[in-house]
Amino acid sequence: MPATAPDPAASRARSWWGWGYADSHPDDDECLALGALLPGALPRPLPVPRVADLAIGSPGVTAPPALAHVVTADPESRAAHAMGKAYRDIARALRGRPGRIPDLVARPTDEQDVADLLEWAGEQGVAVIPFGGGSSVVGGVEYRGDAHRAVLSLDLTSMDRVVEIDTASRSALIQAGALGPVLEEQLRPHGLTLRHFPQSFEFSTLGGWLATRAGGHYATVHTHIDDFVQSLRVVTPAGTGTSWRLPASGAGPSPDRMFLGSEGALGVITEAWMRLQERPRHKASASVTFADFHRALDAVRAIAQSDLAPANCRLLDPGEALFSGASHDGSSVLVLGFESATAPVGDRLATALDMARGHGGRGEAPSMSGDAPADAAVSAWRSAFLRMPYLRDGLARMGAVVDTFETAATWDRIPALIEAVREEVKAAALKCTGHEATVNCRLTHVYPDGAAPYFTVAVAGRPGDEVEVWDDIKAAASDVLHRHRASITHHHAVGRDHRPGYDLQRPEPFALALRAAKDALDPRHILNPGVLVD
Amino acid sequence: MPATAPDPAASRARSWWGWGYADSHPDDDECLALGALLPGALPRPLPVPRVADLAIGSPGVTAPPALAHVVTADPESRAAHAMGKAYRDIARALRGRPGRIPDLVARPTDEQDVADLLEWAGEQGVAVIPFGGGSSVVGGVEYRGDAHRAVLSLDLTSMDRVVEIDTASRSALIQAGALGPVLEEQLRPHGLTLRHFPQSFEFSTLGGWLATRAGGHYATVHTHIDDFVQSLRVVTPAGTGTSWRLPASGAGPSPDRMFLGSEGALGVITEAWMRLQERPRHKASASVTFADFHRALDAVRAIAQSDLAPANCRLLDPGEALFSGASHDGSSVLVLGFESATAPVGDRLATALDMARGHGGRGEAPSMSGDAPADAAVSAWRSAFLRMPYLRDGLARMGAVVDTFETAATWDRIPALIEAVREEVKAAALKCTGHEATVNCRLTHVYPDGAAPYFTVAVAGRPGDEVEVWDDIKAAASDVLHRHRASITHHHAVGRDHRPGYDLQRPEPFALALRAAKDALDPRHILNPGVLVD
Repeated sequence: MPATAPDPAASRARSWWGWGYADSHPDDDECLALGALLPGALPRPLPVPRVADLAIGSPGVTAPPALAHVVTADPESRAAHAMGKAYRDIARALRGRPGRIPDLVARPTDEQDVADLLEWAGEQGVAVIPFGGGSSVVGGVEYRGDAHRAVLSLDLTSMDRVVEIDTASRSALIQAGALGPVLEEQLRPHGLTLRHFPQSFEFSTLGGWLATRAGGHYATVHTHIDDFVQSLRVVTPAGTGTSWRLPASGAGPSPDRMFLGSEGALGVITEAWMRLQERPRHKASASVTFADFHRALDAVRAIAQSDLAPANCRLLDPGEALFSGASHDGSSVLVLGFESATAPVGDRLATALDMARGHGGRGEAPSMSGDAPADAAVSAWRSAFLRMPYLRDGLARMGAVVDTFETAATWDRIPALIEAVREEVKAAALKCTGHEATVNCRLTHVYPDGAAPYFTVAVAGRPGDEVEVWDDIKAAASDVLHRHRASITHHHAVGRDHRPGYDLQRPEPFALALRAAKDALDPRHILNPGVLVD
Repeated sequence: MPATAPDPAASRARSWWGWGYADSHPDDDECLALGALLPGALPRPLPVPRVADLAIGSPGVTAPPALAHVVTADPESRAAHAMGKAYRDIARALRGRPGRIPDLVARPTDEQDVADLLEWAGEQGVAVIPFGGGSSVVGGVEYRGDAHRAVLSLDLTSMDRVVEIDTASRSALIQAGALGPVLEEQLRPHGLTLRHFPQSFEFSTLGGWLATRAGGHYATVHTHIDDFVQSLRVVTPAGTGTSWRLPASGAGPSPDRMFLGSEGALGVITEAWMRLQERPRHKASASVTFADFHRALDAVRAIAQSDLAPANCRLLDPGEALFSGASHDGSSVLVLGFESATAPVGDRLATALDMARGHGGRGEAPSMSGDAPADAAVSAWRSAFLRMPYLRDGLARMGAVVDTFETAATWDRIPALIEAVREEVKAAALKCTGHEATVNCRLTHVYPDGAAPYFTVAVAGRPGDEVEVWDDIKAAASDVLHRHRASITHHHAVGRDHRPGYDLQRPEPFALALRAAKDALDPRHILNPGVLVD
């Protein structure tokens, strides 16, 4: 049981307005190079926004002395907690009109701090926005509206310890504020890993993953963090509770499943017992190219409906494959990866490659390894994957409207859905901007009964109106998803940006139950107001 | 799309008071033979109870003409819907004091019938007990109390069709009242199967499995029916709703997970889109014997923590193995089975057998097959498994107190938990009856982080006081489970029998939310009163 958590990121400054580390941002020259790829880009990059240029007023409320040690009104902190990291947030920062700046930022160090802060906020009518790594791309960590006296951003990242490890049950009690690398570093000496690696891994926390039902490492079987939860501890304005540590239970509706995906609107998840994995000892990966995207979809479906359970099964359409360097000839690329701590995985990869070839795939020689370098297309794609949000922000400085959105649907609807999204989003972008948009698609997580297509959109915006352009494009995307009965989100939560689509998606009896639960747990409606329920 | 469902059980009469088919019950001679195994048994079997001997009064309410065609007050029907099939229910029937006989039994044929019945019941203050196959072993389908004017048993088994099949997404829309064999027969022509085979398979329905979060076919990975749910349609007194058909979604807390396990207290599940499987083409099974039960536990844990994913991984302790004929020398027996529609499974079985041998197991030669006869211990156990509830009822007629209960706990607690349950339940039984009880244990479902021990208890009761004896034994069992923080139930639901344990297990904020949801969806509290919330 380590007493204090290491902080691998301590020495590098996070950007207050853009993705990740400030020193990883593309510089002006790189921005110009990116802009050269974008018809209609600005002639020069928008300046890097500065906190000093924001009109940050005095906080509308003061923390009581008993809580003063965990609360700050420092303008840098407040600015960094005003929004998440969606394109919409980046664009607002670049244009000098960020979301509402919170009055205060709290960094509780234990559960009692959290309970005390909620009690004080309830008495004072202060809105509380739970905040993990701040990587929300759906407006999940900002305040909109004016029904509250003031806004407190509740930053959990000072609660970042692995508190206890049970090696027999291969599980650990982890505080919710631990960022991905922080918790993995504490698990490593025990030979264990949570193995949850979303694109935001470095800049998001366990609590954020749980509150948003994040999609993680595994392309198949246990793709969402939900399945790795053994028990949750939640602080609500109506009291605190812990579910029992159980591998499974048939006792009533699952208590944990009510708080998983609750996005900070029902309570604050302070810690969780999580199911862990052994580190894989056997790995094998390969990529397969397809001349025909629809045949590639059939191949992926066949593999998803087998019991081969690839850890990685990502299909890149021609545009996505070109952008990441995985192919240059207009083919689609399927990246397959298998891993196991138990037994070699070469046979599983070989069977999957046979299936892919049966659907017209051309498979390259598989790369089998412990930690040896993987297949070239795999590596190219991985690097591009982690770099992508930084490039997005660089493109944003060149006036681009560029972001991603994702969905999930059953297989019967997937081919028509992908075609319709491409067409309608391109049409909407053309109408708004006069420019031809790039709309690429990849499948990141696949299931026996469906898949999760992930779309990237890029187009030059109307200078100064980038946010409005993006909102129009997003509205067109939401509309086509809704008509195809495809989920408004697969692993990015609902937040404030997806509320209209969410209200259409959820069944009305569940909405009634959720509102009732909100009223019972948060009677003064101070928790993340506007998220999930009004 | 078959227009009407076949009914394979149509020609055989169900017992109104005991398990399953009346013609499968042990006769008096078999009962005497069973009694010979039980010290303190009655000298002759209790008579088979008859509906004619029950004091069934006139119904306290009459259905309106518009609903008369789906409602009956026939005494045989009413008696058969008075209780589930726990030992407690059998003993009450044998002693002529069954639970409250419902006033009416309704057999709706479509969703509108269900909605109309709920509306009428709400207006009239009539309690509604949703009823599937009636196999509840936790008092889940009876009425206790006197707060309602009358009681209606809502039998869903006339809604038993597979309505639609989507072969691309390998899923089907199935009405909730379909019994196991009824739905499998409709799926078979499509080469698909739900593959959910609880012990009650013949006598329980899809809706019952969903409402109780039943444990099913798979010993590992997707062990509960929950994971095979794509979407639910639920009729509540506050309205009807359907969740979207999605392979996964990150949009808020899962709507389906609120109704899974809701035991008829929040709404009536009328149909569900379920994820299906292909029938396995490759199978392999074997049994392994262990001289030491604790080393067998270690072996099972190692296999559960691998990624081998056996479909069957059942560990029988020496008593359970002896009873089922799987071993006669005091050893424990591990029954392993692998299956796949994709690829041969011999390697996976071989790896698992190696692991078992590493923990002192003696493995027999594996049997690999399509549908060839399996290993002898496997077969012996399977036959005993399906016959067990009938034998239980035969023993009950000989005055035995005999039933099962199950739990789940993380691995760190499993060995001490099993020992404590054995000791404390034996002590409680001895104190109540003066007889030495048999307490056997098997693990039916295993997880990387824990297991689900299943206990069988048998002891001669005090003649006439069998129900009270069982209640005392069950109270001792609940107490030891609670002290070990082991679930009050893993796949038998909460019902009325487990309410005290359930109230201790669930976290208080969740209890608040659940009560609020109940008030919102069932404001007059007519749905299965006393289940989950008061």
